[in-house]
Amino acid sequence: MKQIEGGVTAAKGFQAAGVEAGIKYKNRRDMALIYSTAPCTAAGTFTSNVVKAAPVVWDKKIVEESPAARAVVVNSGIANACTGKQGTDCCAAESRCAAEALGISADSVLVASTGVIGMQLPLDRLTEGIRKLAAVKSDTLEAGSDAARAIMTTDTVPKEIAVTFEISGKTVTLGGMCKGSGMIHPNMCTMLGFLTTDLKISKPMLQKALRADVVDSFNMISVDGDTSTNDTLLILANGLADNEEIASEGEAYDTFREALRFVTTWLARKMAGDGEGATALFETKVTGAATKEDARTLAKAVICSSLTKAAIFGHDANFGRILCALGYSGVQFDPENVDLYFQGKNDSIHIYGNGVACDYSEEEATRILSEPEVTVLVDMHMGDAEATAWGCDLSYDYVKINADYRS
Amino acid sequence: MKQIEGGVTAAKGFQAAGVEAGIKYKNRRDMALIYSTAPCTAAGTFTSNVVKAAPVVWDKKIVEESPAARAVVVNSGIANACTGKQGTDCCAAESRCAAEALGISADSVLVASTGVIGMQLPLDRLTEGIRKLAAVKSDTLEAGSDAARAIMTTDTVPKEIAVTFEISGKTVTLGGMCKGSGMIHPNMCTMLGFLTTDLKISKPMLQKALRADVVDSFNMISVDGDTSTNDTLLILANGLADNEEIASEGEAYDTFREALRFVTTWLARKMAGDGEGATALFETKVTGAATKEDARTLAKAVICSSLTKAAIFGHDANFGRILCALGYSGVQFDPENVDLYFQGKNDSIHIYGNGVACDYSEEEATRILSEPEVTVLVDMHMGDAEATAWGCDLSYDYVKINADYRS
Repeated sequence: MKQIEGGVTAAKGFQAAGVEAGIKYKNRRDMALIYSTAPCTAAGTFTSNVVKAAPVVWDKKIVEESPAARAVVVNSGIANACTGKQGTDCCAAESRCAAEALGISADSVLVASTGVIGMQLPLDRLTEGIRKLAAVKSDTLEAGSDAARAIMTTDTVPKEIAVTFEISGKTVTLGGMCKGSGMIHPNMCTMLGFLTTDLKISKPMLQKALRADVVDSFNMISVDGDTSTNDTLLILANGLADNEEIASEGEAYDTFREALRFVTTWLARKMAGDGEGATALFETKVTGAATKEDARTLAKAVICSSLTKAAIFGHDANFGRILCALGYSGVQFDPENVDLYFQGKNDSIHIYGNGVACDYSEEEATRILSEPEVTVLVDMHMGDAEATAWGCDLSYDYVKINADYRS
Repeated sequence: MKQIEGGVTAAKGFQAAGVEAGIKYKNRRDMALIYSTAPCTAAGTFTSNVVKAAPVVWDKKIVEESPAARAVVVNSGIANACTGKQGTDCCAAESRCAAEALGISADSVLVASTGVIGMQLPLDRLTEGIRKLAAVKSDTLEAGSDAARAIMTTDTVPKEIAVTFEISGKTVTLGGMCKGSGMIHPNMCTMLGFLTTDLKISKPMLQKALRADVVDSFNMISVDGDTSTNDTLLILANGLADNEEIASEGEAYDTFREALRFVTTWLARKMAGDGEGATALFETKVTGAATKEDARTLAKAVICSSLTKAAIFGHDANFGRILCALGYSGVQFDPENVDLYFQGKNDSIHIYGNGVACDYSEEEATRILSEPEVTVLVDMHMGDAEATAWGCDLSYDYVKINADYRS
């Protein structure tokens, strides 16, 4: 597997665009299109929130029932959530408009929205935006980047990646993009993520791979503990790599899973590190847990703790908050038997063991906690299971961004 | 029932004190004593955190096994959590010292600590503080207030209350004090709460009343979602009101429960409203839920949502975040069938219903959201169960306080 330049347009047959449609934001790209020249197998995972945005309901149906997908239309600024029948009608109108502009069928058009909940989308500007997108779409890397920029809300950087790998002697490409950066506590998983690949794979295997993947990638990140109404992760596979179709588990499937894992983990980490107001990526790696589920629960409890996140922002080695978070996670363990370490890029220090604080240097701890990526290692000494979760620190800017996000 | 002046010294036979012991803070009271001239029946509820501070373990044993309690010694500044054997030994030494200074037995002394996790308590200053407390203890209201001040950490105001009520022709007094104000997500229930009463009641009934009470009082508040290692709520009943002993359920028990509920709810609300960095109390009242448990879960999800808390800080009627929180709470419901209202002191406005935003005035909403106590009413239209939860807004100051709390 090899990382290459690009994002959603890296794989064969995929085109993209990002344009200014004036949905809510001014003077920036706010609509994106992904388009495949060939019919795609599609799979998706969606928010577990009871309150589901209209596009989530729409896409679920397309992914489950449509014979093929060809395009995804995305807007930022307004989430089309809590919008009743008008919101649902809007998804249908978007699809019809895109189908006409692209010369494809309406049931092959996926839609996604992100932004403020409770506002209606301006349908006229939306359809005008779709026609613009169809007119300028292209398979260049720039077009992919334009799309990655257009889906941003409070994100500070676009997030895109692509890799190639070999399956049955053919080079396959997998690319993706995603956006955060608040209301991020995916449980499938307002993250939006879009993956494109020219892999040939059956629909059940594509869905299986995606579902298995998110458990350890997007579902292991959190910015603020709020699971959005709009979380959507879609993957489109158009088969143009011309490999032998993956229709069951085996070596080819494993190779794809590995590439998928690399891409989704990369995107998930980027999303966590670019959390609203974040100054650092905050990673927690739990080892020696009794079960995989325990490991995930413990790791997530630490990166979700507001107090721990504020301490990371302050570069303060307040390890008691980490132990406290582990302690209320719901997992049973003996606190006397836990080891905690802070890990920097080049070194790590032992902070807590045998039930008490270690004799560490506060200065050294502060230095490690001032790096742009801070890792806490937790060894539970109970078994072999491990998991990693990603979050970010809690800063003044998180409050600032969210105290007046609507206005 | 009648609210009266005072706190833990309001009930007959109770004395208190608050002194400067220099445990960690400088130039402020940081140790408190509650003392009863007569032996007390004691009951307690403690943190559900796996990582339990040494005083929590100590008090559990005293409450369960000791024939009677006579005193509670409390310090702020250092939590005596994650302190291993040295921490446990410290509790024993505190008890011995208090027993000697007060002329009572060591197994009748309860201890509590709040502050930084992972630091050891300075035993010399602690025992000196205990001797000072014993020397100045008194039954005045001022002594109660001194104690309420001494247990504060990041609290901005002391929290104390007292009420009287009649049981079998006798006037009974119940008083209490508590402290917050970060790591507050009680699940009993770093809240510390201490209640004193001259009620005559059997130990099982006292424990039963306390356990039943916290579910709807202290366990329904949250400042930051972090359940502390030190959460402790103790009640001491010395029987000096000379009522007919409450030994079973019935009218007298119900009268006591009502008084207890009033006192604990008052303290819990104060604690939530004085949450770290808070500018407003944020109350969520859920009605029409299918079950009481659902009502509690829904109400707590809203007051725990960082995004909603930040919107309250910004006086922004971002109701989508409230719906989002209800949606990920784990309770199943139909979003089209929910009504949301913002309630102020004198009026309320309908924000959301029939699946879409109501046609409300943003100006009016902002006015209501600028009051010092903000209430969200949620009607689920599914049944008769209701519950109320209390939290606070999320401000810059929460981050500030917690980015450098240790230093």
